[in-house]
Amino acid sequence: MPPNGPPDRVAIDLGDRGYDILIGPGVLGDPASYDGLPRPQSALVVSNPTVSALHGARLRAMLEPRHARVLQVDLPDGEAYKDWSSLNLIFDALLAHECDRRTLVYALGGGVVGDVAGFAAACYMRGVPFVQVPTTLLAQVDSSVGGKTAINHPRGKNMIGAFYQPLRVLADLDVLDTLPDRELSAGLAEVIKYGPIADAAFLDWVEAHLDALLARGKPALAHAVRRSCEIKAWVVGQDERESGLRAILNYGHTFGHAIEAGLGYGQWLHGEAVGCGMVMAADLSARLGLVPAAFVERMRRLVVRARLPVAAPAAIGADRFVDLMRVDKKAEGGQTRFVLIEGVGHAVQRVVPEALVRETIAACSG
Amino acid sequence: MPPNGPPDRVAIDLGDRGYDILIGPGVLGDPASYDGLPRPQSALVVSNPTVSALHGARLRAMLEPRHARVLQVDLPDGEAYKDWSSLNLIFDALLAHECDRRTLVYALGGGVVGDVAGFAAACYMRGVPFVQVPTTLLAQVDSSVGGKTAINHPRGKNMIGAFYQPLRVLADLDVLDTLPDRELSAGLAEVIKYGPIADAAFLDWVEAHLDALLARGKPALAHAVRRSCEIKAWVVGQDERESGLRAILNYGHTFGHAIEAGLGYGQWLHGEAVGCGMVMAADLSARLGLVPAAFVERMRRLVVRARLPVAAPAAIGADRFVDLMRVDKKAEGGQTRFVLIEGVGHAVQRVVPEALVRETIAACSG
Repeated sequence: MPPNGPPDRVAIDLGDRGYDILIGPGVLGDPASYDGLPRPQSALVVSNPTVSALHGARLRAMLEPRHARVLQVDLPDGEAYKDWSSLNLIFDALLAHECDRRTLVYALGGGVVGDVAGFAAACYMRGVPFVQVPTTLLAQVDSSVGGKTAINHPRGKNMIGAFYQPLRVLADLDVLDTLPDRELSAGLAEVIKYGPIADAAFLDWVEAHLDALLARGKPALAHAVRRSCEIKAWVVGQDERESGLRAILNYGHTFGHAIEAGLGYGQWLHGEAVGCGMVMAADLSARLGLVPAAFVERMRRLVVRARLPVAAPAAIGADRFVDLMRVDKKAEGGQTRFVLIEGVGHAVQRVVPEALVRETIAACSG
Repeated sequence: MPPNGPPDRVAIDLGDRGYDILIGPGVLGDPASYDGLPRPQSALVVSNPTVSALHGARLRAMLEPRHARVLQVDLPDGEAYKDWSSLNLIFDALLAHECDRRTLVYALGGGVVGDVAGFAAACYMRGVPFVQVPTTLLAQVDSSVGGKTAINHPRGKNMIGAFYQPLRVLADLDVLDTLPDRELSAGLAEVIKYGPIADAAFLDWVEAHLDALLARGKPALAHAVRRSCEIKAWVVGQDERESGLRAILNYGHTFGHAIEAGLGYGQWLHGEAVGCGMVMAADLSARLGLVPAAFVERMRRLVVRARLPVAAPAAIGADRFVDLMRVDKKAEGGQTRFVLIEGVGHAVQRVVPEALVRETIAACSG
């Protein structure tokens, strides 16, 4: 096999907090990926036991020549552990080893590891540098851009956190080879999302290359990750603090969060709920006349092909479903505003009459 | 008594994170002090039982016409409670009342309340706005500028935190009338600090007006608070993230922290330890030939007049004293660098031979 070419590079332009995302096979094990990063005495790898067993040794081999000490903390695996006690495991390790404020934190894992390690880096001594090494497709296309870090509170997800940018993101496509099929599909839900909200041509491309993506073809994955990051960066760049436009990234999420909460978190993967939620949001868009009915079928076909669910669990019930969406949005201090599609590639936010929402729930449950 | 004139106003220039400090008698109870602040549905006052009993009603009376709901959380009083459990009391209250990300947090209290409430505001939903209402002289001259927020970790003070700027600081000089004498003196230690490090004329002024300050004269306090904030803002403005120059604000603190830690936190007030520490740092500066011996006597006389200690407790012992200073600085990844005075109004940082440090400890303990 020929060696890998240079990785794709997406530059996130945030002034003095800007950084690069390196995308490609072999990025993790290529010393050049680390060029220009600071080399303080201590580095701390934050991971979980599953990911650490698969990829930890390769990362450590890269870091050991660069730092006098490479420490490691493995967090318990799963959304249930995205909490203060995991955060404190990181603080305990940093303080037990007398790590100073130059210590470089590497987050090696999926969304939970990235969110917790990023928030720990944001808070330790009021901020130490960190590098994201996302090991799921979802984390590569979603968490790589935007600087959101957080832990959960018993009363709500992601309630305690910070906006904090990494120094670099290393999105190694080879690590996706070990990803379970179900998690690959969940990541594809977020890839699919970017076309309808911002780039009609990318939706065409995803439809044409979905089989290659499911087969984990590296050129297809590289384009999908790069274009997803570019689109997210474009949106976030205009709205870093999430005051308006950035909400379009939540296409499918209002319905999706209600499904996740209605079933109890952990039943459906987040990406699965978003896949179904995008079909529902498309359906609602059509009921408002913003897109033709054919667009709903197009979304549904694509989500099915990605091996994601397209029907919300009927067991939740329409009344509870509506309530859950209201709770989800209450935190934003207003009515439920849905992210809808108004012509492929263009998202809008609208308050929608509840009767229409109920029609969508009825049509999309099963 | 004639009404108060308009308060002094110190503008902290940090671009889109800039804010004003309003300084004067009656600031807290003047509706004009609140002009231009956002008026979301919910405001949360964070305080402690002591301060709340003295000043809580006046603040609430100002806020109730401005917000549909004024919530309150009283944290247990004291440095021992500057921890995760106090922070969580704030999160619990915000979430129990479904407060959204526009909620305005008011920190009414001294340094502990300001640090914990500020950090909670920095983290809740990744950042909600907050206003500082410092009720100690120390907090008015120290915490009003710099954006430092934090909680303690069992292994170290202020280890978990954020740089986060308030929307405004309301420094009401009338609240200092109820401050215990010992805390007034502790605050004066930080006022005294600003002259030697940055403004020789201000040191002259403090010497000339110390009796008025001790008598809590409002014009003297107004000038002391304003000039202290101006000097700190000038230093911080050049070094917001504490990479270099900002360290001069720690004049007296390396010795002081060792005293606090050596006696056990809570024995001496922080300002008392800083008062003694400044005399010791002056002594060390003289041993290096940076200032004449007369400057040491000048510092000592002023610190005595401010009713602050000038002799470190001999019980700590020189060996332990030196060790404690080394631990204090280890977090910064280097040797112990002392902030020294090189001519009144000019601070420098130096690594100093341990033998000289021991001479200072011997000369300044008793």
